[in-house]
Amino acid sequence: MASAIHPTVDHGIQKGAENFAGGTLRCQCAQDPVEVRIDSQVLFNHACGCTQCWKPAGALFSVVGVVPRDKVTVTAHGEKLKVVDDKATILRHACTACGTHLYGRIEKKDHAFYGLDFIHTELSKDAGWDGPGFAAFVSSIIENGTPPSAMADVRQTLRDKGLEPYDCLSPALMDLLSAQAAKAKGTYREA
Amino acid sequence: MASAIHPTVDHGIQKGAENFAGGTLRCQCAQDPVEVRIDSQVLFNHACGCTQCWKPAGALFSVVGVVPRDKVTVTAHGEKLKVVDDKATILRHACTACGTHLYGRIEKKDHAFYGLDFIHTELSKDAGWDGPGFAAFVSSIIENGTPPSAMADVRQTLRDKGLEPYDCLSPALMDLLSAQAAKAKGTYREA
Repeated sequence: MASAIHPTVDHGIQKGAENFAGGTLRCQCAQDPVEVRIDSQVLFNHACGCTQCWKPAGALFSVVGVVPRDKVTVTAHGEKLKVVDDKATILRHACTACGTHLYGRIEKKDHAFYGLDFIHTELSKDAGWDGPGFAAFVSSIIENGTPPSAMADVRQTLRDKGLEPYDCLSPALMDLLSAQAAKAKGTYREA
Repeated sequence: MASAIHPTVDHGIQKGAENFAGGTLRCQCAQDPVEVRIDSQVLFNHACGCTQCWKPAGALFSVVGVVPRDKVTVTAHGEKLKVVDDKATILRHACTACGTHLYGRIEKKDHAFYGLDFIHTELSKDAGWDGPGFAAFVSSIIENGTPPSAMADVRQTLRDKGLEPYDCLSPALMDLLSAQAAKAKGTYREA
């Protein structure tokens, strides 16, 4: 039995349109939605099983990717936005009325991902966003109530959908984090 | 080019002998070595790229596994043992003369791995220990000075040796950690 992962995965993953230059994210409020314009294609889009990322009702995973923070502009009802947890590394700016996370921002300047905001492209009706390319923090869905006995099926479903499952981030991103840690410690070697 | 991983990997990984019941670990001191008797086969033995595990000179990875803590007995020169970092989750008991780590112990009773001690079977001359079965914290070797450009080769070498590379622990162990976290939060579901 295939597990339901996330609507944008279950119904087939879309590849990004060439020269796609972004779109507008909207929260789920029927009235006065928060709007955020993104002037970029999404990068490193992926399914994420962590307990902090916003996900639609019924989904096992969120789908989240990054864009340069200077490509993110709140264009309507920014007064409804508030940071969910100001102690988290990624400060998730959420709509206080409907709870949707519009964008996550890292303010620690020494973090490897500083300068990149985290967004959920499903909040945009624009076509052309690049779909998820891997699955991160897969084991963490157990913390959201998935029984451990279901994990083999979940990992197989992810692979069948073309999303390699990782219990942390992907190797490319983990290498970036380790390189940043090495630079901070003075142990980094280029070659 | 194949990367050198660790002596027990580079020269071919040994499978454990049936009914093997343990052996004695010795530190590297020529005189008065610390001795620790292990009355168990090693479990979950793996290559580890983290910056805290002890490894022989020149190795990219340590090789480390676990045994029940009640199967670990210091039988000689325990007076030379001292905990390397008493703030680490795994308290590594090392020889103060030669620096070798004899065993690592978790004292946090709510940790998923409480009750298991971490050991390096290469410190034993007894034959029959089970060799490593996967590679953990692979990206972390960048923090020990491996250039990021070498990582593709390292991961390929690990796969060629039969060690699936992970940048955290293996899925089975990550699921155990998540299950423990879920129990602590009250979100655990059995099925």
